[in-house]
Amino acid sequence: MGKMIYAGKAKQMWTTEDEDVLRVVYTNQATALNGKKKTEVEGKGRLNNLISTLIFKYLNAQGVNTHFIKTISNDEELVRKVQIIPLEMVTRNVAAGHFSTRFNVKEGTKFAAPIEESYFKSDELDDPFINNSQIFGLKIATEKEIEYMWQVSRKVDQLLTPLFASIDLQLVDYKLEFGRLKDGTVILADEFSPDNCRLWDTKSKQHMDKDVFRRSLGDLTAVYQEVLNRLEAKLGKEANK
Amino acid sequence: MGKMIYAGKAKQMWTTEDEDVLRVVYTNQATALNGKKKTEVEGKGRLNNLISTLIFKYLNAQGVNTHFIKTISNDEELVRKVQIIPLEMVTRNVAAGHFSTRFNVKEGTKFAAPIEESYFKSDELDDPFINNSQIFGLKIATEKEIEYMWQVSRKVDQLLTPLFASIDLQLVDYKLEFGRLKDGTVILADEFSPDNCRLWDTKSKQHMDKDVFRRSLGDLTAVYQEVLNRLEAKLGKEANK
Repeated sequence: MGKMIYAGKAKQMWTTEDEDVLRVVYTNQATALNGKKKTEVEGKGRLNNLISTLIFKYLNAQGVNTHFIKTISNDEELVRKVQIIPLEMVTRNVAAGHFSTRFNVKEGTKFAAPIEESYFKSDELDDPFINNSQIFGLKIATEKEIEYMWQVSRKVDQLLTPLFASIDLQLVDYKLEFGRLKDGTVILADEFSPDNCRLWDTKSKQHMDKDVFRRSLGDLTAVYQEVLNRLEAKLGKEANK
Repeated sequence: MGKMIYAGKAKQMWTTEDEDVLRVVYTNQATALNGKKKTEVEGKGRLNNLISTLIFKYLNAQGVNTHFIKTISNDEELVRKVQIIPLEMVTRNVAAGHFSTRFNVKEGTKFAAPIEESYFKSDELDDPFINNSQIFGLKIATEKEIEYMWQVSRKVDQLLTPLFASIDLQLVDYKLEFGRLKDGTVILADEFSPDNCRLWDTKSKQHMDKDVFRRSLGDLTAVYQEVLNRLEAKLGKEANK
């Protein structure tokens, strides 16, 4: 079973026999408002794992270097062990959520070019918004690392925006996290699921992501299952075998 | 007398006979917490005007292009009319105030290189912290303008840090604002006073700036007068004639 070395809001990380490999267990916990809103949602762990698996396999196949190795059960995957860089790298194609409130920009406003924001991962400090000058001053990451992370984030946008569009979903915004391998190489880590991105149905404009939970708009499981169904129809269910 | 075209927290702007020139009147109002804490401090307008005059004259003489033309009374000056770019450009040499709280960094921690932050000037939105990507996405300023404003901010740091050090004051942090002339040229505007910077006495470590008011540490006027006295001793009182 290994040893649990990290328990996050929606995932646990366990050691394996290979010291460079970790087992990720996706839990059913849904949280919002930095943990202030919290509940168990049956099936959520499985859905996030299967959705993230399809996306990471797709990104790996397109040449993006990620931590993903393979999925070993409905709610478990194996990943390369990294030291997570404590930054959330957010890309926004369309105004929504926090951005809309902060700058009084109507939800749905499309940007000429994607807007990029980073947040310092710290529960204690409530994940403050941070700029590059602060990141370098506080020695959180190097200029080269930041440059590389945004380069990958832009490639992810170029790959996933058309992918989601082809299954009638608009990729509104998303959050990526990165980690360092032992030798310092930075690779994409964490997950890509409706917990960490916003997806709007291009026809009905329905929210197909965690805003369903944050804003109490209905059944989160049904919505995540629909995202999974569309991805499987597009990318092939066998991707998860 | 002209027409009052702007009433800010600590200054009013009036038109003059020359359409390219405005008259600034420094008021005695002291505000903090974005206007939530407010009071009248007798003599504050005069002190800010005289301090800012000495600093802007010094910057002009050192080749920094500013809006300052001349001081016409104890609390009035003439400036070139600009369209203010709604950004506060903050440079931090030492951790203090908001930065210390936000990132849990002890006040007084010196940075290897100055940390640069911008804030979107909007009372309605509570002056949110903003990054370059958001500034460009919201079309608040161009890349060229931002680059120029930081270039000037760095020159100001290089000029004023040693100037203040020579009168036993540490320049902890400061806020600059810029504006566009009719032809689009960006120049330094607003003021430079203990209202917009932090100055610590290098010997006693005493706060010699608006933190005296924000934190209710004593008599603001006496502290500002001491800053003015030291600047006059250094730069010459005749600078204000």
